[in-house]
Amino acid sequence: MRIRELIITPVAFPDPPLLNSSGVHEPLALRTVLRLVLDDDAIVGLGESSGDVRHLDLLRLVAPRLVGHDVFATTALRTVVDAAVNDALPAPTARERTAVHSAIEVACLDAQGRLTGRPVYDLLGGAVRTTIPYSAYLFYKWADHPDGAYDGTPDPWGEALDADGMVTQARRMIDEYGFGSLKLKGGVFPPDVEIATARALRAAFPDHPVRLDPNGAWTVPTAKRVAAELEGVLEYLEDPVPGVDGMAEVAAGTDLPLATNMCVVAFDQVPRAVRLDAVQVILSDHHYWGGLRQTVALGTLCDTFGIGLSMHSNSHLGISLAAMTHAAAATPELTYACDTHYPWNGAYDVVRPGVLNFVDGALEVPTGPGLGVELDLDALERRHEDYVRSGRRVRDDTGYLRRVRPDYDPTLPRW
Amino acid sequence: MRIRELIITPVAFPDPPLLNSSGVHEPLALRTVLRLVLDDDAIVGLGESSGDVRHLDLLRLVAPRLVGHDVFATTALRTVVDAAVNDALPAPTARERTAVHSAIEVACLDAQGRLTGRPVYDLLGGAVRTTIPYSAYLFYKWADHPDGAYDGTPDPWGEALDADGMVTQARRMIDEYGFGSLKLKGGVFPPDVEIATARALRAAFPDHPVRLDPNGAWTVPTAKRVAAELEGVLEYLEDPVPGVDGMAEVAAGTDLPLATNMCVVAFDQVPRAVRLDAVQVILSDHHYWGGLRQTVALGTLCDTFGIGLSMHSNSHLGISLAAMTHAAAATPELTYACDTHYPWNGAYDVVRPGVLNFVDGALEVPTGPGLGVELDLDALERRHEDYVRSGRRVRDDTGYLRRVRPDYDPTLPRW
Repeated sequence: MRIRELIITPVAFPDPPLLNSSGVHEPLALRTVLRLVLDDDAIVGLGESSGDVRHLDLLRLVAPRLVGHDVFATTALRTVVDAAVNDALPAPTARERTAVHSAIEVACLDAQGRLTGRPVYDLLGGAVRTTIPYSAYLFYKWADHPDGAYDGTPDPWGEALDADGMVTQARRMIDEYGFGSLKLKGGVFPPDVEIATARALRAAFPDHPVRLDPNGAWTVPTAKRVAAELEGVLEYLEDPVPGVDGMAEVAAGTDLPLATNMCVVAFDQVPRAVRLDAVQVILSDHHYWGGLRQTVALGTLCDTFGIGLSMHSNSHLGISLAAMTHAAAATPELTYACDTHYPWNGAYDVVRPGVLNFVDGALEVPTGPGLGVELDLDALERRHEDYVRSGRRVRDDTGYLRRVRPDYDPTLPRW
Repeated sequence: MRIRELIITPVAFPDPPLLNSSGVHEPLALRTVLRLVLDDDAIVGLGESSGDVRHLDLLRLVAPRLVGHDVFATTALRTVVDAAVNDALPAPTARERTAVHSAIEVACLDAQGRLTGRPVYDLLGGAVRTTIPYSAYLFYKWADHPDGAYDGTPDPWGEALDADGMVTQARRMIDEYGFGSLKLKGGVFPPDVEIATARALRAAFPDHPVRLDPNGAWTVPTAKRVAAELEGVLEYLEDPVPGVDGMAEVAAGTDLPLATNMCVVAFDQVPRAVRLDAVQVILSDHHYWGGLRQTVALGTLCDTFGIGLSMHSNSHLGISLAAMTHAAAATPELTYACDTHYPWNGAYDVVRPGVLNFVDGALEVPTGPGLGVELDLDALERRHEDYVRSGRRVRDDTGYLRRVRPDYDPTLPRW
């Protein structure tokens, strides 16, 4: 079955003012929704990926070159993608090419599943689990955006700028979704504040593993000190410092597993990390690593080298969530709860409700054909209109924070 | 779709007197043919694996435990296999368990392909190539078995006990099958004889890459000397010495890539080989490595660590050949011609003719559903009768050679 067309729709959706080491989330998050139409019009495969204009432009460059290719030949499409983007200026990096292929692979797999009547996990070796635990993704945050939310609705989450605020946020996340583990986005406040927050979470929720991710905001000496203080408190510490060399230095001095989705985000970065024993947990992300099949292969690789496997998340909607869930179902090595931003943005989803419901912090793996989710075309149109109207084309957490704090310096490490 | 039954049929088929470092091929080679029957009787998935009785017994132990499991859940079946064989005495090794799972996975994938109407390669990410080059597998050999062939037919290949005999054998392989590369099984004669044979092949067929595999018959000093002499002559040198430490020593002193299907035959052996830079080419074999999906994953792993990928063969029939061909089609990193024993045994195949035809040394990847081959039930019955009648249950190349040379010592390294 051949590919007839790839329909590319950028979308925007409201996002709360979530703080991180490079700034604060803007009132709108951007994503791209893909619809891969096969020669048989009845089959459409869904995909979702980054909304940044550079990625969008590359997808648009590649789309016409997909026409006529076999929807099952996803590995061969790597070459098609590479060839198609060769003319782009500035020349795309290997990472950018892989991200484009990743997005297309998911849409192909959804289409394959619909064609064969099988859920995507069955195309990846079958499900090793039927529910996928996710973690509560906790953010320091403002009470509101400076100019209010994009759609004017009040922010229901309130402020969280210290340990107490974070415990309140966590409690609400757990009450609403049942999450069994907690991920704290750090790199926002001086380390002692974040240590106190991690300790407060651990004390308030003693049965909930806590992970902390300062996104490379610390120097090696700082990270060593924090790691020493948080041994026995954290499940793992994610990207305390930028770069694999620094991670190796920190890892050498702590029993705390170090995780990353910054210094090892592609296969070619694995050998050096292995040689240096720099990371103990890799956070997979099918949007970066080459799609769902490569995410499963990453599990084999991690198992081979005794590296743990968890899953990373950016702001996303339900197509990505479904894809993450299928990948997790088919990857036996994925033993940590997966990260997801979905509670922050899921109200603005472009897929029809009913499939992606958190129960006890976990999603039941969709069992319908393909990814098992259906597009809500009206919602897609509204999100696309927001995208067009907003004029937003790139994510700029730093620039947005500078509106409030003009002297904000995003240089890392900061402490 | 659920598994109803696994039908296990050991078979035996005539094999020429091919010499190797542990002895000589007996008049009959053994294999096991699997038929995985689904709840819908119409679907039967085919598999083929080792015929040694230990493997056969483990398959028989596992078979009833497969009943009722989803044929798509091949990854989850690893756990089922592990649990099922736990009671076996003596306790199975991880390698033995993986071999059992590998055989079952292929049968499941064949059934999945038949269910969905897709060739197996489409279930592995699609084909990156439509023809798979194989190498001519050259053996030193006797003119005949001491007591004649099992079925009494004269051996058409004749003797090959020196360079001239081997060039003749190679020429015939190339004339009949069109092979574009040559694999010489060594470890039979003193190294200088095999060096001379390799040189003679190179001289006679200058456009045909030559690889040499003495199966660990040499000491490290011998291997270093041979490697130095054969740089520029060989495409790669396979398992010159036993063990990964010796391989690393040899590798450190030569530009010749070292390949292995002896010291790295499972994922858990990869890290040490990587750390020692002991092997430059891994020979995949879906019968060992965990099936077709793990063979594709091995490609990703090899690419990640800059290791080449080729493919190993034992004596086999058409089901295995089809499975090898699908794996090769779906594995972009497999850039060497694959090994196959098929020319030595293919006349006794249990699959119907017409699909697996070598043209220019390559097989067209079967495009029918599943593996794309159909069982010849009459042939299967004949091969099974030979198995029963022969009383043969294990492969014993050493014992067979000792009938002719009672003082034969199989200890390696030999030179």
